[in-house]
Amino acid sequence: MAVLVKTNRRVTLAARPHGFPKDGDFVLDEVEVGDPGPGEVLVRMLWVSVDPYQRGRMSEARSYAKKLEIGDVITSQSLAEVVESQDGRFSTGDLVVGQLGWQEYGIVRAGSVRRVPEILDPPTLALHAVGATGMTAYFGLLDVGKPKPGDTVVVSGAAGAVGQIVGQIARLAGCRTVGIAGGPDKCTDCRLYGYDEAIDYKDENFREAFKAACPDGVDIYFDNVGGGVSEGVHRRLNVGARIVICGQISQYNLERPEPTFHPGALIVYRARMQGFLINDYAHRFDEAALRLARWVAEGKITWREDVTDGLENAPAAFMGMLRGENRGKALVKVADREHAK
Amino acid sequence: MAVLVKTNRRVTLAARPHGFPKDGDFVLDEVEVGDPGPGEVLVRMLWVSVDPYQRGRMSEARSYAKKLEIGDVITSQSLAEVVESQDGRFSTGDLVVGQLGWQEYGIVRAGSVRRVPEILDPPTLALHAVGATGMTAYFGLLDVGKPKPGDTVVVSGAAGAVGQIVGQIARLAGCRTVGIAGGPDKCTDCRLYGYDEAIDYKDENFREAFKAACPDGVDIYFDNVGGGVSEGVHRRLNVGARIVICGQISQYNLERPEPTFHPGALIVYRARMQGFLINDYAHRFDEAALRLARWVAEGKITWREDVTDGLENAPAAFMGMLRGENRGKALVKVADREHAK
Repeated sequence: MAVLVKTNRRVTLAARPHGFPKDGDFVLDEVEVGDPGPGEVLVRMLWVSVDPYQRGRMSEARSYAKKLEIGDVITSQSLAEVVESQDGRFSTGDLVVGQLGWQEYGIVRAGSVRRVPEILDPPTLALHAVGATGMTAYFGLLDVGKPKPGDTVVVSGAAGAVGQIVGQIARLAGCRTVGIAGGPDKCTDCRLYGYDEAIDYKDENFREAFKAACPDGVDIYFDNVGGGVSEGVHRRLNVGARIVICGQISQYNLERPEPTFHPGALIVYRARMQGFLINDYAHRFDEAALRLARWVAEGKITWREDVTDGLENAPAAFMGMLRGENRGKALVKVADREHAK
Repeated sequence: MAVLVKTNRRVTLAARPHGFPKDGDFVLDEVEVGDPGPGEVLVRMLWVSVDPYQRGRMSEARSYAKKLEIGDVITSQSLAEVVESQDGRFSTGDLVVGQLGWQEYGIVRAGSVRRVPEILDPPTLALHAVGATGMTAYFGLLDVGKPKPGDTVVVSGAAGAVGQIVGQIARLAGCRTVGIAGGPDKCTDCRLYGYDEAIDYKDENFREAFKAACPDGVDIYFDNVGGGVSEGVHRRLNVGARIVICGQISQYNLERPEPTFHPGALIVYRARMQGFLINDYAHRFDEAALRLARWVAEGKITWREDVTDGLENAPAAFMGMLRGENRGKALVKVADREHAK
């Protein structure tokens, strides 16, 4: 049966969230799909990704990327199959990833998506351990943090999408790893990811437990969370410590985020605090994807997916992720593959 | 007339300051001088230095150096003449600098002081532009900040001891320089030091004036001050900015310093914030002193001294410096040279 695709369902921004996002900040609409022009491909989403950075795009504040306007499709990494190609590099049935958004279909320039090798199993790895999430861990830890064997590496949000990979790369680099996560279940996950220690920041004895877990202090702090958790870690820095600022999820839904850091601490410890974005590493994506895929194939990196079914449920998955309810990389399944080769 | 030296007047810590130091936190006492043993030198202070970091040594809090105990001589860099040497490297009349404290005499290991060349004119340069102050500017700007020609370099405390040198080295490195200082007189001094722009943070239009002075944003922020002034600068960072944390003088006398920084800003600007101490650069002191002395001799670096007379007035000079009353490097003259060769 030939299906003539005509409509594209999309999740768009209905209103800028004030504080914590609510269901009414999103709307599911329909538009006509259209046809790809020369150099373009029409793709059909199979999976879309749910990530903390999306919260920033919904805000008015100046940031590193263009903010979403009301009515825009929510930005996301998505795994898609090519339905129709007007570019020699792709043909129908190819799997691709790219910044394709929370929608069923997209028409994009062929150069803006990356091919997903058929041997990648499952292909959703291209959205996490071997995709943007894994690369964030890879460049943030190795390039910004510069781990040395024997370093104590502390990771906040350790059971989250990025955190679970950071701990495993740090272990491969010969480091001792301490994961900080919220609640006993996530701490159990941390041990599955090979963390030497897992500390529950929701536990009332967090600071003492953290101190006991870092008898030799902290050489690298890979921070996904910020806020009070990070204040506790900053008290245990070693001379020459590196603080990698990957995310600050505890701050994203505050109307007025409170400053949480005393720069003077960096003098005491001759420490470095540095932010980064994987976009700046585009010229090294192939290197990172290759190494990550090899580690996964060799069983040296494990992962966990937290799957929500149905594009219409992406906002709920997003809000759940911001509340810390996901266990593993949050993904939304949009459709089964139809055009497999 | 031979003078048999018997007593050493010293300024010691009488009580740990709570908040802003007061006169009663210091006491002038006398002890017997004693005789240098093998490998030691007896020195007589000519000048002692007054610096913000001394406030940290007086506190209970853990920091990078051993804290002062009650009754200890106040730590300082001092310029002294050798009275008696029990080490082959020095003889009577040599000028030396070292961490010799606020006192008239000291007995120290010969290896712990550095010789001041007789050609250094005035020799007090060894306490500022060619000494610890100049080296702080040198390593902090060049090694931590890594300036590139055309960068906009912003300095807080720009008319202070370190700040006046930072601006001039930045200019020599081909940068555009913007100094922030307190009050119109210090802004005048900034222009004397060659700053392209000087902005008064006490002026009610500070933020607007600062914005106008940095039309292309901020590439390097050399921060001596911290607090609200720094918050204003952080809003104008460029992608790839470097924030050099040299000091946080606005915070040193607060009983409970307030956090002032949002680490998330480092993600937006892919920026780096780093602390340093010149002690870590001891292996490069000769290099720095040589380059600084050459720049001074060539007239490429100017400086200003703020002199207080009499060891007993060192606490008052220190408190004045913490209030920002000094113009230029704060020094206390203790004695005239007697043993010149």
